[in-house]
Amino acid sequence: MTDPETLPIVRTVHHLRAMVYAWRREGQRVALVPTMGALHDGHLGLIRLAKRQADRVVASVFVNPTQFAPHEDFETYPRSEASDAAALTQEGCDLLYAPSADAMYGPGFATTVSVQGVSSPLDGLARPHFFGGVATVVAKLLIQCAPDMAIFGEKDYQQLQVIKRMAADLDLPVRIIGAPTARAEDGLALSSRNAYLTPDQRQIAGMLNKIMAAAAEMVAEGGWVQTAETEGQAALLAAGFEKIDYFEFRDSFDLRRLGPDRADGVPRLFAAVWLGKTRLIDNRGL
Amino acid sequence: MTDPETLPIVRTVHHLRAMVYAWRREGQRVALVPTMGALHDGHLGLIRLAKRQADRVVASVFVNPTQFAPHEDFETYPRSEASDAAALTQEGCDLLYAPSADAMYGPGFATTVSVQGVSSPLDGLARPHFFGGVATVVAKLLIQCAPDMAIFGEKDYQQLQVIKRMAADLDLPVRIIGAPTARAEDGLALSSRNAYLTPDQRQIAGMLNKIMAAAAEMVAEGGWVQTAETEGQAALLAAGFEKIDYFEFRDSFDLRRLGPDRADGVPRLFAAVWLGKTRLIDNRGL
Repeated sequence: MTDPETLPIVRTVHHLRAMVYAWRREGQRVALVPTMGALHDGHLGLIRLAKRQADRVVASVFVNPTQFAPHEDFETYPRSEASDAAALTQEGCDLLYAPSADAMYGPGFATTVSVQGVSSPLDGLARPHFFGGVATVVAKLLIQCAPDMAIFGEKDYQQLQVIKRMAADLDLPVRIIGAPTARAEDGLALSSRNAYLTPDQRQIAGMLNKIMAAAAEMVAEGGWVQTAETEGQAALLAAGFEKIDYFEFRDSFDLRRLGPDRADGVPRLFAAVWLGKTRLIDNRGL
Repeated sequence: MTDPETLPIVRTVHHLRAMVYAWRREGQRVALVPTMGALHDGHLGLIRLAKRQADRVVASVFVNPTQFAPHEDFETYPRSEASDAAALTQEGCDLLYAPSADAMYGPGFATTVSVQGVSSPLDGLARPHFFGGVATVVAKLLIQCAPDMAIFGEKDYQQLQVIKRMAADLDLPVRIIGAPTARAEDGLALSSRNAYLTPDQRQIAGMLNKIMAAAAEMVAEGGWVQTAETEGQAALLAAGFEKIDYFEFRDSFDLRRLGPDRADGVPRLFAAVWLGKTRLIDNRGL
């Protein structure tokens, strides 16, 4: 058992590797759970899954500046290392890796890892900076930590597919595991950005999952994708969502648009919607 | 001692790692020497350097399609695995890794590693495909093999700086070592592409190094960079070189153009010239 008083925190690759390599030399299997902090029960579910799959669990907390555009919420993104560390300790996490931006991006840093195809639609269109920043920082974290496995939430489903593609293409010796989305009682996907919502907005937000479920059911029962998307978008606006970046079905593996008969893939529904200055994303299978 | 009869050849990451991980478990230090085959004495010098620095030496031979543009010499690039393997055996190399293009770039491959800045000038302008292909394949080779060190020739000096930048930025736990350029008696840098030269072209080619030495000496003695470049270019054309992609001084670390007084860096001379369909590159310090 990990002593709940002593969750070690390391801030450099050197110290991270000293811990992880020692575990691996003893034959222990190591899981990495990369996060941007502001941990909620969705993150802690990833830690619990990691505990079941590995002997040692490393959580990383790094709010990655390169995946935010200048107008996005990098400065205001919630940061709460002390309470994050307390929650991780509670769950039996073995190590917190919390590097500074300077440690991650040293002087003259000039390298980008990019993934074509799966990065292009959806958030790739809505947030052109995003996946280049994500693929690069996750490649770095996986190389820095060299875990046996790394766990990511399916809430960021496109990100998960980008990371799976990147890790396979770069031959990283790591298993990428997707974990089901954790949800509030009304079905809202847990997200650090939910903290931005006013009580009124929070109530509207709970409708997103219900409207998505209805659209997915319509398609599962043979309804037209186009109709389900149009009706879902209308329902979102009627519920009080102010802007829709996307609400569309795509293939669950490579995120291509599917043909009308959907025989060429496995459909999954993806949505990104706005309430005030807060952007919410979600996705679900049929 | 390695038995000269038994240089093992592996063609998959799985088999490569089985060998390398076994050595590393025994505490042996592993060097990787990545090549495109058609080995000449310049390559073998890298193997000899690797033998002095490490306990085990892996050579890779992979003619990487993604670093050739459609009009370039990918199809005709010299391939000679049997004689390469014989030469590597002679030098005491421990393992030849020779993957197929399909093994390196599986179905759906979509990831690129790119390096800004140092990739941009010189061959980055002349061969826009080149460094994206190089950085990606070398990142893969370094991740696949996980050597303690990797050795590259200074003949491809810009490539060496791109690889150093990439390996540092991605936190790859490997030391990148540059080795001095091997030269023929008349000073021509050894290159697999020298095999393309006719006897007449080969004679002209020997002038490249001499003209570069004269230009570097002029600058070392305080002469103007601009004058040395202009005079060198005129001398190249007079000697029979048919086209000059570049003949210019740049900073030896990040390949920036230097100011007129050169106080802001360490100058190095870079040249790329053509004889018929053959492109020759070379570089030298002052």
